Amino acid sequence: MIDLPQLKENDVFVAFASYTTIVLSKMMFMSTATAFYRMTRKVFANPEDCASFGKGENAKKFLRTDDRVERVRRAHLNDLENIVPFLGIGLLYSLSGPDLSTALLHFRLFLGARIYHTIAYLTPLPQPNRALAFFVGYGVTISMAYSLLKNKLYL
Amino acid sequence: MIDLPQLKENDVFVAFASYTTIVLSKMMFMSTATAFYRMTRKVFANPEDCASFGKGENAKKFLRTDDRVERVRRAHLNDLENIVPFLGIGLLYSLSGPDLSTALLHFRLFLGARIYHTIAYLTPLPQPNRALAFFVGYGVTISMAYSLLKNKLYL
Amino acid sequence: MIDLPQLKENDVFVAFASYTTIVLSKMMFMSTATAFYRMTRKVFANPEDCASFGKGENAKKFLRTDDRVERVRRAHLNDLENIVPFLGIGLLYSLSGPDLSTALLHFRLFLGARIYHTIAYLTPLPQPNRALAFFVGYGVTISMAYSLLKNKLYL
Repeated sequence: MIDLPQLKENDVFVAFASYTTIVLSKMMFMSTATAFYRMTRKVFANPEDCASFGKGENAKKFLRTDDRVERVRRAHLNDLENIVPFLGIGLLYSLSGPDLSTALLHFRLFLGARIYHTIAYLTPLPQPNRALAFFVGYGVTISMAYSLLKNKLYL
Repeated sequence: MIDLPQLKENDVFVAFASYTTIVLSKMMFMSTATAFYRMTRKVFANPEDCASFGKGENAKKFLRTDDRVERVRRAHLNDLENIVPFLGIGLLYSLSGPDLSTALLHFRLFLGARIYHTIAYLTPLPQPNRALAFFVGYGVTISMAYSLLKNKLYL
Repeated sequence: MIDLPQLKENDVFVAFASYTTIVLSKMMFMSTATAFYRMTRKVFANPEDCASFGKGENAKKFLRTDDRVERVRRAHLNDLENIVPFLGIGLLYSLSGPDLSTALLHFRLFLGARIYHTIAYLTPLPQPNRALAFFVGYGVTISMAYSLLKNKLYL
């Protein structure tokens, strides 16, 4: 098997890999948070999920929505909407040879902003806590996109 | 144009590319499944989509939700939530030089788990079929993330 | 720090990076469109978001759904569902050494189709405008997936 020495010795790429793995693991945690609230609050979306709580009409009462569960789902979707652009743009940015300290600043701000966004959404903290967290993460991705498009473009 | 011989001769990367392409194609199939159920059951989310079925008030009755359509949409969203982390973490894992047989085991389990998850969701099969499929896919991604973070980290 | 000369001199990869950055930035614009409609129409999903508009019962009346906001959210989710496969399959396709002009045709069609899809969804234009835009983008991704799987496969 052929090794890829350049990528493994490229500090920016290793940093991107580390931060991406952490931020994606954080996003995956939202699935277990949803499952946890569904179980403890007995709130389900599918009849087969609450079959063990009763038969027929008795089980149907668990097919409902719940503020807490919907809140976690919105936080999860917001993660998806923001982490997907970070993933794509961040990968290309990492491969475009940016300055290590600049790249680390971007990655750290993004990870911090997304973690704070989740805390602000689930607690919930009063606004503009969540809005600020959102815009910091958004700004980081826009800044990387700008640096990519300014740098080299082929349309 | 410059060729990228290392990547094309890297078995793990070619395997990752093959499995990712298949799992993403499977996910795209969910869009056509949603469209199929919307058409056959005449269940639409936008007024312009059912304009051909009647004018004015007559068309509005098709603007509704349907258990079957919502089920496909939940399965699709669950795919997105799980395939995005697999995509990001799996790509970095493939580039980190893992053992070929270990990598293949991860990719095969993930693909199998996601296909079984869709079957269990759409049939629907009784629980814990879907839950097990979900946790196998989840476990594969966590295992790759752990291997990445243990291997080399730059924070 | 080690540079990655091959990738930066690979025209297909630079083209992929350019188009991906633009299409992801377009997708991120949907978040601000949602926020804009939520603000101007005073339609919120979380109590803390409309706390500044009144206290207690007075604020609760802003916790509602709105056709316009739901439309932008559906367009955003459709973007996610289609851009994620493009991101994964397109990256692998770019690294598989395709012909530059073929690759550019794929990327341009996809970007044009997704921009037209958003315009058709938000205006809204009568069908089949949106459906056609969807299928062009879908076809581009399927074509790249087919080219990848035909080319080299390791299962």
